[in-house]
Amino acid sequence: MNRYAVGIDYGSLSGRAVVLNLQTGEVAASALFEYPHGVMDEALPDGTRLPDGWALQHPQDYLDVLSHAVPQALREAGVSPQEVAAVGVDCTASTALPVRTDGKPLCFLERFASRPHAYVKMWKHHAAQPLADEMTRLARERGESWLPFYGGRVSSEWSLPKLWQLAREDEEVCRAADRWVEAADWIVWQLCGKLTANACAAGYKAFWSRQEGYPSRDYLSALDERLARAVEQKLGGDPLPPGSLAGFVTKRGAALSGLAVGTPVAVGGVDAHVCVPAAGIDGPGQLLAIIGTSTCHMLLGERRVAVPGICGAVEDGILPGFTGYEAGQSAVGDCFAWYLENCLPASVREEAQREGRSLHAVLRGRAARLRPGESGLVALDWWNGNRSVLTDASLSGTILGLTLRTRPEEIYRALLEATAYGTRMIVENYRAHGLPVERFVASGGIPLKDPLMMQIYADVLGMPVHVAAAEQGPAVGSAILAAVAAGKRRGGFDSVGEAVRALGGPGGTVYTPDPQAASVYDRLFALYRELHDHLGRESAVMRRLRAIRAGEA
Amino acid sequence: MNRYAVGIDYGSLSGRAVVLNLQTGEVAASALFEYPHGVMDEALPDGTRLPDGWALQHPQDYLDVLSHAVPQALREAGVSPQEVAAVGVDCTASTALPVRTDGKPLCFLERFASRPHAYVKMWKHHAAQPLADEMTRLARERGESWLPFYGGRVSSEWSLPKLWQLAREDEEVCRAADRWVEAADWIVWQLCGKLTANACAAGYKAFWSRQEGYPSRDYLSALDERLARAVEQKLGGDPLPPGSLAGFVTKRGAALSGLAVGTPVAVGGVDAHVCVPAAGIDGPGQLLAIIGTSTCHMLLGERRVAVPGICGAVEDGILPGFTGYEAGQSAVGDCFAWYLENCLPASVREEAQREGRSLHAVLRGRAARLRPGESGLVALDWWNGNRSVLTDASLSGTILGLTLRTRPEEIYRALLEATAYGTRMIVENYRAHGLPVERFVASGGIPLKDPLMMQIYADVLGMPVHVAAAEQGPAVGSAILAAVAAGKRRGGFDSVGEAVRALGGPGGTVYTPDPQAASVYDRLFALYRELHDHLGRESAVMRRLRAIRAGEA
Repeated sequence: MNRYAVGIDYGSLSGRAVVLNLQTGEVAASALFEYPHGVMDEALPDGTRLPDGWALQHPQDYLDVLSHAVPQALREAGVSPQEVAAVGVDCTASTALPVRTDGKPLCFLERFASRPHAYVKMWKHHAAQPLADEMTRLARERGESWLPFYGGRVSSEWSLPKLWQLAREDEEVCRAADRWVEAADWIVWQLCGKLTANACAAGYKAFWSRQEGYPSRDYLSALDERLARAVEQKLGGDPLPPGSLAGFVTKRGAALSGLAVGTPVAVGGVDAHVCVPAAGIDGPGQLLAIIGTSTCHMLLGERRVAVPGICGAVEDGILPGFTGYEAGQSAVGDCFAWYLENCLPASVREEAQREGRSLHAVLRGRAARLRPGESGLVALDWWNGNRSVLTDASLSGTILGLTLRTRPEEIYRALLEATAYGTRMIVENYRAHGLPVERFVASGGIPLKDPLMMQIYADVLGMPVHVAAAEQGPAVGSAILAAVAAGKRRGGFDSVGEAVRALGGPGGTVYTPDPQAASVYDRLFALYRELHDHLGRESAVMRRLRAIRAGEA
Repeated sequence: MNRYAVGIDYGSLSGRAVVLNLQTGEVAASALFEYPHGVMDEALPDGTRLPDGWALQHPQDYLDVLSHAVPQALREAGVSPQEVAAVGVDCTASTALPVRTDGKPLCFLERFASRPHAYVKMWKHHAAQPLADEMTRLARERGESWLPFYGGRVSSEWSLPKLWQLAREDEEVCRAADRWVEAADWIVWQLCGKLTANACAAGYKAFWSRQEGYPSRDYLSALDERLARAVEQKLGGDPLPPGSLAGFVTKRGAALSGLAVGTPVAVGGVDAHVCVPAAGIDGPGQLLAIIGTSTCHMLLGERRVAVPGICGAVEDGILPGFTGYEAGQSAVGDCFAWYLENCLPASVREEAQREGRSLHAVLRGRAARLRPGESGLVALDWWNGNRSVLTDASLSGTILGLTLRTRPEEIYRALLEATAYGTRMIVENYRAHGLPVERFVASGGIPLKDPLMMQIYADVLGMPVHVAAAEQGPAVGSAILAAVAAGKRRGGFDSVGEAVRALGGPGGTVYTPDPQAASVYDRLFALYRELHDHLGRESAVMRRLRAIRAGEA
């Protein structure tokens, strides 16, 4: 009997395979394999130097994950390949590569081994920033209909600026590239012998929508005829919703992965978005916040509406049958790391050394002893601009309420609180536009490590915060969506709802709001909102500071 | 021929005597004597404990300064007592003590040696804060005419709250006290055998004005009959302008100080205010900023007008014939000290250790390499509230423009700049109310040590900043005013203007604005002003933060 699903998550530095028990919902085993080439941001394997802003990966590493992590996970779980009902894959995005029609990556060809554009461009390849800016400019000028669904701005982390850079900078590689494929889709292709495109990456990273497809030829031609041609010829097919069946493991796929020939393979996914079913979410009303260096807030809606400040709204983008909404806070963990690097006084450092504790632990310990409101501080969490709901990268962080008595832990707590207020703004913005938020689930590295922060989030939001196990979230999500792709008759489930109910959700800690703290935070949040609206909307002070800093007249 | 004047400055921890050459303007010698009792803020000499907030001095220390520092300075200058044309004294204020009609301090009497109220209450004795608050409340309620000339608020550092505390808390000492005297006036009395009151302390610290005298009996009675009686009986006489003659050194005064019998003695002064003639200022249009832990801005006007945000406006308060205006910034050096204590990261500390430089020197070195506007930051310098021009203690410090790229030296420079913007607000406020500011002179500890800060002040103000020698400023100022009190026929001068012209001013460095920097700072100051007006006047955010912090509903 097929009682297991395998999920494989491709991160920035390693890939992880998990074996999920479809009857108990437990992870039977998990195996990690680090990419031998890691992130290539200085040179190619042959020593060819890379310019600033580049970040590449090697597709051989993805195959190595299949041949190492998958068999290892099965072995450790004591599960035979025949017991696997389905396999699913997710990856960071947009992380994409140029390949031939036979699926061979161009960097595998000896003649292109020294050509940077022949490799995988990772999500954090930022070298196409000027092209992304030009795409934004022209889309605004022309009033492109898709732009408002993407926070009004094209990110260099997305697919098309990277493809455009290839088309402009390496004509030969571009000509040799029959397709421009997301890494997740390429891996699925290696397993099942069939090229599919997943609606999540196509929608969130390449502006594809069910009604309008990719951006118009008109718009793309106005940017660059080479880009228009590349989109026409190298993307395409009809992107499939998450939980769709892509095909079945071929002989070659079996040889690569140790899985059985004929095992159902799900369409690929994006790492953040596949966490949604892993968090036990199967429909509207439940928000998943993945909290790390930045925070991504995902929510499902019955239909596609223009919610201001959203940084992505894609039908079938997260779960089939729903519009997936994404909002974001662009600096969360990053902001605390900035504080530690730039503002941490000797007294805290010495206490940490004396007591053998981490700096965060000392700060958290001191901050936890403060009453809400005791510091007299309120901060705006805009250290990296504001992604939602203001979508304005020129905004900046602010700390207000400083006095001669302000202590370091008060500033630290104010930063924690600021990110909680920013999250509440996003939650209230969703609600104000007809998308209910009845349950709040937190995932990612920070929620597991920082109970103080989670309690503050519960108190600020005035609702329980459910912390879902994070580390294996994407791989588990991919396994769940694979089981849905297989369907009940092949040992899986016929819907995400069915899967979530059967698997029992992610468990984990629940933080309940303290009524007294919540009432103080209601008053503080009103002050945050006043500053948010004044400095983010009414006043031009922050934009002018940026202009002066940039030396503009 | 009497070619010298002696000035004696009583500070918080020591007294300093200088011998000023009245022909060259040079300080011939200077001698310092540290108070044996220092500041008594924990216990009396006999071990009697003091409550929190108390800060006392011992009048014997003042006499010891006369008998040590004055002869030593004369000796080192090679000047005989007969060559001294006049002597003048200034002290911190309000620093006052209860004495008998014969001038004996009550603490000199054995029966009162254990009574805290029998000693000198220093300016920083803050134990009468609740009484000061009550005085403010009632003065506001009754619309007392003097209140607007004092920033709308009674400070616990001033005279009447301290006298009230004595009257309330120690009936016996209060009854035994014939007079309540400023320390400067008491020392003058010891030298010349005559009790005078100086208009500077009476005006700035006890609300005395030429037209209305001290606050009305009506008001004082409404506070406390004991206070009304004390003011009536223990203050008084007709306060004399700075540069007035108080009397001549008596036999006893000569025995105490080594000065010659018959030497003219000037009326006492307040340390900050006597710096004005020492800085070469003899009339309107020239602002003296004394920059230390806080900053005091003094300016002379032709007449007394209500300038909003002024913390003191007194006729004859600074120089005879003019109204002296005082404004203030309540945290300057304090703000930088706060930064060093609470926000200084390890990287700066390590650089300082490695290079054997001070923390300030490392920060200043890094900050000096930044272009104006490069940090993208603007701060509001309200770490201890705003004294001028908003006179609101509930306001608080703010840093705006923080990003993940913000470095420590950028924050430090932003704090320097914020205090410069605060100073410009004060300068512009003076100008807007008909008091021209054509020359800016800086004095105090910080201007001598921090060329970067002074250059920023010049660039932000768009006018040259003249830095006057600071350490001996008050003592030199007292010597100048003494020479004026003596008059030309006794070897002095007939006016402050004549003295300043003859003595040639304080010399010192001049910082000239850089036109390009000044133009960037004009734009940044416009942003500061916008935030200042919004957060200081229009928005209640800061007041509400205080209320929440205080646990108010």
